[in-house]
Amino acid sequence: MRCRKCPQRAVLQMPRHNTAFCRSCLTEFVRNQVYRAIKKHKMFTTQDRILVAVSGGKDSLTLWEILLKLGYRADALYVDLGIERYSELSREKVERFAKEVAIPCGAKLLVHHVKEQEGAGIRELATLVHRPTCSTCGTIKRYQFNRVAVERDYDVMVTGHNLDDEAARLLGNVLRWQEEYLQKQGPSLPASVEGFAKKVKPLYRLTEREIAAYAVLNRIDYVVEECPMAKGAKMLVYKDVLNRLESESPGTKQAFYWGFLEREEKARPTSLSMSEADQSALHPCPTCGQPTTANVCTYCKMMGRVSEAKTSST
Amino acid sequence: MRCRKCPQRAVLQMPRHNTAFCRSCLTEFVRNQVYRAIKKHKMFTTQDRILVAVSGGKDSLTLWEILLKLGYRADALYVDLGIERYSELSREKVERFAKEVAIPCGAKLLVHHVKEQEGAGIRELATLVHRPTCSTCGTIKRYQFNRVAVERDYDVMVTGHNLDDEAARLLGNVLRWQEEYLQKQGPSLPASVEGFAKKVKPLYRLTEREIAAYAVLNRIDYVVEECPMAKGAKMLVYKDVLNRLESESPGTKQAFYWGFLEREEKARPTSLSMSEADQSALHPCPTCGQPTTANVCTYCKMMGRVSEAKTSST
Repeated sequence: MRCRKCPQRAVLQMPRHNTAFCRSCLTEFVRNQVYRAIKKHKMFTTQDRILVAVSGGKDSLTLWEILLKLGYRADALYVDLGIERYSELSREKVERFAKEVAIPCGAKLLVHHVKEQEGAGIRELATLVHRPTCSTCGTIKRYQFNRVAVERDYDVMVTGHNLDDEAARLLGNVLRWQEEYLQKQGPSLPASVEGFAKKVKPLYRLTEREIAAYAVLNRIDYVVEECPMAKGAKMLVYKDVLNRLESESPGTKQAFYWGFLEREEKARPTSLSMSEADQSALHPCPTCGQPTTANVCTYCKMMGRVSEAKTSST
Repeated sequence: MRCRKCPQRAVLQMPRHNTAFCRSCLTEFVRNQVYRAIKKHKMFTTQDRILVAVSGGKDSLTLWEILLKLGYRADALYVDLGIERYSELSREKVERFAKEVAIPCGAKLLVHHVKEQEGAGIRELATLVHRPTCSTCGTIKRYQFNRVAVERDYDVMVTGHNLDDEAARLLGNVLRWQEEYLQKQGPSLPASVEGFAKKVKPLYRLTEREIAAYAVLNRIDYVVEECPMAKGAKMLVYKDVLNRLESESPGTKQAFYWGFLEREEKARPTSLSMSEADQSALHPCPTCGQPTTANVCTYCKMMGRVSEAKTSST
């Protein structure tokens, strides 16, 4: 099969767009979609200092590469979760990418070590606080990314969530009609209050499959395996279900997520990062100073329980 | 395992309610859910003349039986689609049920023959008008049920759509955010204008599995096989997907559909049968007199194409 834009051989069929691209046209298409996402949602400009959350997977490394290729000032933060083998492998991939691609462009890689800072690997922390590993991990990553972005004066925090991620999250929220989460499903959440960094998702227009093809064709070396802790996670079930629907009816994921965004835009023309009630209830956490609506922020509460558990076990 | 309400042996586990019932407690539970649906949505009273759409399947026969047991004045209409073997089998089941259960309660069974009235079986009609069989069937059934209900002065038209049906339809509409259909997802659509019968769905609180168990335990003899025309229908894919989600997380279907209803109720406290724009655009079809927003109603347009196709082929 031929590329739809040039006489080259196509390397990827894209049923949802009823098209197929060769290597160079696919590369152009993917970068273009990222650029359109950035412009459409006024995510950032070439003047802004950007912090990309990188995990070593295809999405975040591809995103970092594209941002640098498009001329943005993008540094990255890697959170080392201390999962045997998997974290080492991921860190190696991230460090190699930084050395070979990012640092030559003038970018920096920052690393946060959970074992050193939080005092134990993610698996042990989750056990200590009796919470699922994925939710413990989410709390730490959200906290540390925001802390680093705010402390080091980054203008915006960027994550590699793609169309599959966002559609799966939307499905989960729609299945239970979780109003407060549905309000935060947009690809751009402004820095609502002092101490909360702006957060954006420039890959929301691209599927996992398209990003994986881009990464392979552009020789981005990434960790292929899923995080071993994610087995059985609900998000994987939602993704599976959406893949089934997509194969029955190409374009389903896009129509679902983009259609939701259009509908929200009509209903709420000004982009909201959170309900006004939430916003007015925010105050600095007495322990760490980050904004929270609770007495003590989730992260500090969790770390408090970690210390207690450690003390009582010694 | 024991019944949760009495010392009998349980015959059905219901993970979504975290319970299990014996035969008689299940029967009571199912009838109760139907009764609650009728009351909650003010569907009808014992004074009203009710027309139940019966197909010979478990849902519609169970519904007819329960309405009679609860003391409602419920006649039924069976539309014979003229599908070889399947339609004969279905009609037999409906007629036997009418004879053994309904007629002794003073109820009547009406039958509409598509082959006689529309001049050909559903399969041939669909071929003649170049439309999918399921959508041709939908048009005919909607039209004929409404016509009979209006002409014979029934107060309300009742269908056997269950929780699985409604959740599947909601999923399809939400995946493409079809606003105009989302507005009509409620279990009770009032008779918006002269010529449109009120339509209600008293089984919306019960799953397929619960209704099948009720039918078997109460010796309701129904057609077990799916309509042979429905193979590959999108609704079956949506049901499959929801069953997968339900087994991962019991209660998903209920939370999804009931949650949607609650949300709609908050957003639109007065129940709407259709958008106001639609309503004001309705006028009698010049051919048959039923209300339509189009020039000629969908049914008459379709039947016009059937005559043309027949004429041109002779």
